[in-house]
Amino acid sequence: MTNKTASLLVIGNEILSGKTQDKNLNYIAKKLGDMGITFVEARVVRDIPEEIIKAVNELRAKYDYVFTTGGIGPTHDDITTENIARAFNKKVIRHPEAVKKLEEYYAGRPAGTLNEARLKMAEVPEGAELIENPVTSAPGYKIENVFVLAGIPAIMQVMFDYSCIHLQGGQPVVSETVSCNLVEGDIADRLTAIQNEFSGIDIGSYPFLHEGTFAVSLVSRGIDAEAVKNASETIRKMVKELGGKLLEV
Amino acid sequence: MTNKTASLLVIGNEILSGKTQDKNLNYIAKKLGDMGITFVEARVVRDIPEEIIKAVNELRAKYDYVFTTGGIGPTHDDITTENIARAFNKKVIRHPEAVKKLEEYYAGRPAGTLNEARLKMAEVPEGAELIENPVTSAPGYKIENVFVLAGIPAIMQVMFDYSCIHLQGGQPVVSETVSCNLVEGDIADRLTAIQNEFSGIDIGSYPFLHEGTFAVSLVSRGIDAEAVKNASETIRKMVKELGGKLLEV
Repeated sequence: MTNKTASLLVIGNEILSGKTQDKNLNYIAKKLGDMGITFVEARVVRDIPEEIIKAVNELRAKYDYVFTTGGIGPTHDDITTENIARAFNKKVIRHPEAVKKLEEYYAGRPAGTLNEARLKMAEVPEGAELIENPVTSAPGYKIENVFVLAGIPAIMQVMFDYSCIHLQGGQPVVSETVSCNLVEGDIADRLTAIQNEFSGIDIGSYPFLHEGTFAVSLVSRGIDAEAVKNASETIRKMVKELGGKLLEV
Repeated sequence: MTNKTASLLVIGNEILSGKTQDKNLNYIAKKLGDMGITFVEARVVRDIPEEIIKAVNELRAKYDYVFTTGGIGPTHDDITTENIARAFNKKVIRHPEAVKKLEEYYAGRPAGTLNEARLKMAEVPEGAELIENPVTSAPGYKIENVFVLAGIPAIMQVMFDYSCIHLQGGQPVVSETVSCNLVEGDIADRLTAIQNEFSGIDIGSYPFLHEGTFAVSLVSRGIDAEAVKNASETIRKMVKELGGKLLEV
């Protein structure tokens, strides 16, 4: 059986304006890899209804799972839910269980704290199933294969973890990294030969700056742990034969 | 005249596997904003020919400018150029000027340093125009409205800056941020009214954790600097009236 596929839709002007550095993609990427779900594509769009609707509909048709981040708070610029609803041709409803969670969370605060703005966070497209948020109580939700999560990393992360019960894992991807003080141009031929020898796994070559000069990380990835181990061993042997030094980074 | 539009295609398994945190999107986002070019969409795809070709062709048809990052080095997993060429139905050629740059850069090194792997970095789709890389000499390039840049941030950044001579700037986006210790749910109604008053600009509301509790940054953005200033002033007044404290963050 092949692994399930996933995609991420980051909804947020703040990412495309450069105000905020996205951190959610990296978190989700690592988790999906551990679960054996193939992360195929990510997109970032602005807070514009047509752009959200089009992207959600394209991604949910193409992949087993779609995660969205951002735009489910109480302010005027939080327009994710109304547009997810439009993408699915559903009405927006106030979810009774979500209202209850907010009431519990705001119990004991001054009257009026749970105002209309905050109650907006209890709204979901009709038919959606809530995803818990123990941090601030306002839930995310799942509608069909689309998981609608918060944008704030601390909240997104717990929501993602709660989403996992709905995901079907596969064969986890194993990876091993060999870093060395050689440069790509000097190892490319040998590395191609190693990639050809271990054709069932992916070997990636990633240069980086180390003590003011270029070095490289060679990453073997795949679901066959034995092949990943053997490829890494072969890479280490190559580094030695080429007079390079292994680096701990 | 409306501002030009731009998109970014991040090509790289290392981003979608979670190995690497992308930093190029944020750099490009800030630069485009400063130049008055509207950054509409970003995508991240794997090192798979069909995915690269499809994404490049969709984005170059939709936006004035497309930037790609990653996959133009000397190793077997650097497959961007051959697939950009396929997207444009062009042959891959070895660009004489790029070869010359590499020869100059590697002059004085041991014979054979400028090997076939390194010469791969002189390859471009036929008709492409080089983009300088003073860091390691291997150039990026421009083909029609697509700018093909390196993935390593230090190199990507200089290539992006060299690309700017080809870009038509517009009215730069001005922004002003007011941060305060209030929470979104308590300001949402007032903020909606302010957004309605200043309909020509975008007001974004971004919660964040400050000293263990939630606070919020309210960002006014637009090309009308006067309106941005007035909106921010109105937001500061709101914060004061609601008993909040302005934060320097």
